[in-house]
Amino acid sequence: MNEYAIGVDLGGTNLRAAAVDGEGKLLGQVAASTSPEKGREHVIGEIVASIEELRGRQWGGRFVGVGIGVPGFILMEKGVILNSNNLPFLENIPLRDEIEARLGAPVILENDANAAALGESWIGAGAEVEDLVLLTLGTGIGGGIVYQGRVMHGFLGMAGELGHLTVVPNGNPCGCGNVGCLEKHASATAITCTAELMKVTAHPNPTAEEIYQLAAGGDWKAQQIFRSMGEALGIGLAMLINTFNFPLYLLSGGPLPAWDYFAPAMFEQVKRRSFTFRNTNTRIEKAKLGNQAGLFGAAYLPFQAQRQRG
Amino acid sequence: MNEYAIGVDLGGTNLRAAAVDGEGKLLGQVAASTSPEKGREHVIGEIVASIEELRGRQWGGRFVGVGIGVPGFILMEKGVILNSNNLPFLENIPLRDEIEARLGAPVILENDANAAALGESWIGAGAEVEDLVLLTLGTGIGGGIVYQGRVMHGFLGMAGELGHLTVVPNGNPCGCGNVGCLEKHASATAITCTAELMKVTAHPNPTAEEIYQLAAGGDWKAQQIFRSMGEALGIGLAMLINTFNFPLYLLSGGPLPAWDYFAPAMFEQVKRRSFTFRNTNTRIEKAKLGNQAGLFGAAYLPFQAQRQRG
Repeated sequence: MNEYAIGVDLGGTNLRAAAVDGEGKLLGQVAASTSPEKGREHVIGEIVASIEELRGRQWGGRFVGVGIGVPGFILMEKGVILNSNNLPFLENIPLRDEIEARLGAPVILENDANAAALGESWIGAGAEVEDLVLLTLGTGIGGGIVYQGRVMHGFLGMAGELGHLTVVPNGNPCGCGNVGCLEKHASATAITCTAELMKVTAHPNPTAEEIYQLAAGGDWKAQQIFRSMGEALGIGLAMLINTFNFPLYLLSGGPLPAWDYFAPAMFEQVKRRSFTFRNTNTRIEKAKLGNQAGLFGAAYLPFQAQRQRG
Repeated sequence: MNEYAIGVDLGGTNLRAAAVDGEGKLLGQVAASTSPEKGREHVIGEIVASIEELRGRQWGGRFVGVGIGVPGFILMEKGVILNSNNLPFLENIPLRDEIEARLGAPVILENDANAAALGESWIGAGAEVEDLVLLTLGTGIGGGIVYQGRVMHGFLGMAGELGHLTVVPNGNPCGCGNVGCLEKHASATAITCTAELMKVTAHPNPTAEEIYQLAAGGDWKAQQIFRSMGEALGIGLAMLINTFNFPLYLLSGGPLPAWDYFAPAMFEQVKRRSFTFRNTNTRIEKAKLGNQAGLFGAAYLPFQAQRQRG
């Protein structure tokens, strides 16, 4: 091990940080609560302390830098969070430069779904390809596009907002102002809310796991929820396949255990709506790194930046 | 003028070829009928003869090579047309290598919509940006994606099939096997067919120009056709904007004179369905080079390849 980097996965209330070598080997990991109620200064302090703790462990190799995955829009050139629903108190401050100054080391901020896509591309399900799209199915749906081994950002860093593809033109309303966004029909939250709407369980707040167990037990309503979710995903994926002609599209997140219940409807729609899919060896698969994808992707960023410079 | 290249725009029954210098200045142009009924050998001969005629004019500068825009799927690495509805007799033969051998000069094949997008990016409406998407509204809808100044191809050269984005999940059936494809709701042909369906004119085969004149004269049915077409375009464009976060999206083709009749509905949908559009300086504009875009883009390909090698 000649070099190592530190990746940080910053969530709304927790953070994880990991030291990773240039081959993607996990050297060590720490977790911390960010306690956002204690304010901006405290959270930045926790980020810096977690990184310093890992650096202090003397891994032996040269320290390349830090990558931080953040849920929100990043202005990449400025190293500023433009908008983050979970971390509003970190918006519009020179966050990257501030952390760089405290660490005396290079720092790169990246959107969390982009970081996850990059992690899968580096050492996960996409290690064999140069180009892939990742959809993260969670509260919403995040998207990350990796092209020729690098994240596609667009001119302001807002590329990959794939949860807001319109898949049902007059569908469920979305906080973004649209109706029928993919994430309002195929996210983990869409599944639980639809189950509540359909009264699939006697109690009002079913979990995704409960709905999955009901589907597995033969409940037709629960099965129909996953079927409907799979159709929405398939419409969205077909559009991505027709647009990019990438070899690989990955799915990650809570609903993945229900693959057998949503994937048939998903593939049916993709086959119908994409002749590119029907006529080429295009793969739609489960991501491999689970909730570690963003951590590894964040750690890869300083290696990638170093290679580009050098 | 130190160097020049030759661009070819190959259509179903005609071809155009142009000598262009490295600044995008048109030096000379020829046109020919390909007479496809005379067969493959004749068409290849016409292509080569047109190029040779331009080369023979002694432009003075060094000849860099040839780019050929073709309506169809190109396997880029092999230089083979995989599928072309208009030129089926040129499918699955080593077309690039054959023309290279006859000319003794490097040849690049490119999809025609991709070539047009590259032309607009080089010296047209996109000359000030690095990234753009072009939609060509014709019999169908072609798409070209230029990222960091280069055409995005995908792993098999099939990227940019944007005419087959699903914009109406249960909409008009398409020859690709899907229903509700963008090109079945927003192409020039979609406009004329809808007009026929609505009996906008007393005769059965209205032209796009007639429908435009009717809309301009106040005919509400004709206006509704452009409104509906604009809505479909807007749904598709919103998805592209959310996906790419590029600064510029261009439209070209026959329906452009009706801009005032379809653009309001288009922008209404884009604003509704893309918070990226609402919150950034994202432009949707008319392309500038008209039917010369593909010719210039094809001519630019050898310059670009030379720069990449050098």
